Amino acid sequence: MKLSIERATLLRAVSQAQSVVERRNTIPILANVLIEAEGDTVSFRATDLDIEVVDKAPAQVERAGATTVSAVTLHEIVRKLPDGALVSLTEDSTAARLTIEAGRSSFQLATLPREDFPVMASTDYAANFSAKAPELRRLFDKSKFAISTEETRYYLNGVYFHIAEGDNGKVLRAVATDGHRLARIDSALPDGAQDMPGVIVPRKTVGELRKLLDDDDAQIAVSVSETKIRFATPEITLTSKVIDGTFPDYTRVIPSGNTRRMEVDAGDFAKAVDLVATVSSERSRAVKMSLDEDRLVLSVNAPDSGNAEAELVVAYADEKLEIGFNAKYLLEIASQVDRENAVFMFSSPAEPTLMREGNDDSAIYVVMPMRV
Amino acid sequence: MKLSIERATLLRAVSQAQSVVERRNTIPILANVLIEAEGDTVSFRATDLDIEVVDKAPAQVERAGATTVSAVTLHEIVRKLPDGALVSLTEDSTAARLTIEAGRSSFQLATLPREDFPVMASTDYAANFSAKAPELRRLFDKSKFAISTEETRYYLNGVYFHIAEGDNGKVLRAVATDGHRLARIDSALPDGAQDMPGVIVPRKTVGELRKLLDDDDAQIAVSVSETKIRFATPEITLTSKVIDGTFPDYTRVIPSGNTRRMEVDAGDFAKAVDLVATVSSERSRAVKMSLDEDRLVLSVNAPDSGNAEAELVVAYADEKLEIGFNAKYLLEIASQVDRENAVFMFSSPAEPTLMREGNDDSAIYVVMPMRV
Repeated sequence: MKLSIERATLLRAVSQAQSVVERRNTIPILANVLIEAEGDTVSFRATDLDIEVVDKAPAQVERAGATTVSAVTLHEIVRKLPDGALVSLTEDSTAARLTIEAGRSSFQLATLPREDFPVMASTDYAANFSAKAPELRRLFDKSKFAISTEETRYYLNGVYFHIAEGDNGKVLRAVATDGHRLARIDSALPDGAQDMPGVIVPRKTVGELRKLLDDDDAQIAVSVSETKIRFATPEITLTSKVIDGTFPDYTRVIPSGNTRRMEVDAGDFAKAVDLVATVSSERSRAVKMSLDEDRLVLSVNAPDSGNAEAELVVAYADEKLEIGFNAKYLLEIASQVDRENAVFMFSSPAEPTLMREGNDDSAIYVVMPMRV
Repeated sequence: MKLSIERATLLRAVSQAQSVVERRNTIPILANVLIEAEGDTVSFRATDLDIEVVDKAPAQVERAGATTVSAVTLHEIVRKLPDGALVSLTEDSTAARLTIEAGRSSFQLATLPREDFPVMASTDYAANFSAKAPELRRLFDKSKFAISTEETRYYLNGVYFHIAEGDNGKVLRAVATDGHRLARIDSALPDGAQDMPGVIVPRKTVGELRKLLDDDDAQIAVSVSETKIRFATPEITLTSKVIDGTFPDYTRVIPSGNTRRMEVDAGDFAKAVDLVATVSSERSRAVKMSLDEDRLVLSVNAPDSGNAEAELVVAYADEKLEIGFNAKYLLEIASQVDRENAVFMFSSPAEPTLMREGNDDSAIYVVMPMRV
């Protein structure tokens, strides 16, 4: 293999690949990236056995071929090379070395044979469709905070991505929950997604996917089977196993009869919650919300260190209510609101509360209260 | 005690104090800041028993008094209060609470009695002088990287701040070393500093001092005794114990007969060292410098992962030389150079190398080679 490639192009391609590589793993080849050069294209492939990323880039290929080198070292070298440099990669298979040259510097990296690199098996996908990057971004960005980190509840360690029946017909839906709070985000059903099986997309995949979705104009090709999901742009293909488990019936958790409505500026609300929570150093800080006509008092009582109180003007016309929440959960749902006011729908101090943005039901959040 | 104070003023005063407080300590009062209000001034005092900071700020004092509250909690609250707010602090000594009010929020923090707060004993200082902030900044900023972190060599865990005989008479000097490299920085002798005893200023004190030195126009009042050093601006007084030990005779380590002179752009040199060091993941990465006429080749050989080489144009007219250094040490001394080219003076591959900025002897660095 022998090729030359522009430094910025190489950096982008290697960045995406190396981020999938686990820093600590016991199988040496998994620390490597598989470089394959043919025609006028070079591809960089990395995997942790659950996720595989392939990133293609244009290059002047003088001699086709393939080899593997440390993803982290290659990335670090390319990152430090001067901007605008032309980088050449030359494999010496006898010496098991890849030579990287740019300007007045050169590197020889140890290689491992391409045959040892575990390429993910191909799959027949049950559904193939195309979605706009901003739509997918919204689905995953607004739900991922609620993903559980409890390893024993592995079936909650991802976003449940599926087709559901919305108020106005079928929708593409992302749901995440850790049992304390839940996020349910809907998007219009893309053509060809009708037969998509529901899958649980693992947390790490959600994180890696995010990097494909930065371009507002990008169309993402999505393919889904019972065991795998694939997201692809013309350059990058991200394939991931999905979590082998059954996502619980989340619809039972979403309250439908909550009638006590409070509307508040989400930014002011988040700032006030953050401010009063300061007096408590406990990990699960309880904030009490005391509601009276058009008036919300947030308070925290930490017996050892002190107490705090802040008042906010809100729209509320129901009877007095006192209800407590984990401060972190309130902050996280409030920070999802980006266009309109936050609308909270309460039932009683012991029952789940619903939050949405204005009257928009395409993103709703449920949070369990705590005793205060 | 009852006072009101502008939020920005309060934040600045509390910030400096709280940074001295150790996050983990077993004596509760040491987590607190002592607030003392009298006249039209409030002061905030914090200590870790080795360093004491007192920060004074103007305030409207309605009732003089003093109390102590958690430095971190107070700082966090003030930080989160809206900019421009007027903050009132009211002590209720019967309830042992300090009430903080600003706008529509209020806080009650638990207090501990002022009598329990350990105020540092006063000292007779042997020397009192005034120094410009940029001069002190240079002395400590350019030497601190060489401070040893080995706890067993406690007498190297700080900067040796003393009067020395320079080439043109007495100078104020800062020296730090960890046995592998050494920094020696000189400054003109201020009036009144002649009788200053040499003291070892601890690493933490050097860090805290740095915050007093940001203002280029500030004059810092410095007082030194055998056991303590004090730095003061009109608002802030930082008092610190000095390390009770003897700094070794560093003059023996500084080579005087090195004749092989290499001059190089410090930025280019640092970038090339960083680049070639990438191939090795070891903690102490050895970089080999191979010198020939006006040409420097930097190389790293890491048997497991590969090797790297970079070439630089330098000014060098002596015979060929190969010498190895720890990459981190080379990077650190190169990053001290800010005005002129870096000048290296070599002797042999086994003897210490000297580095300075151009022909300026007021900041010199010594680094031990390593076998490559």
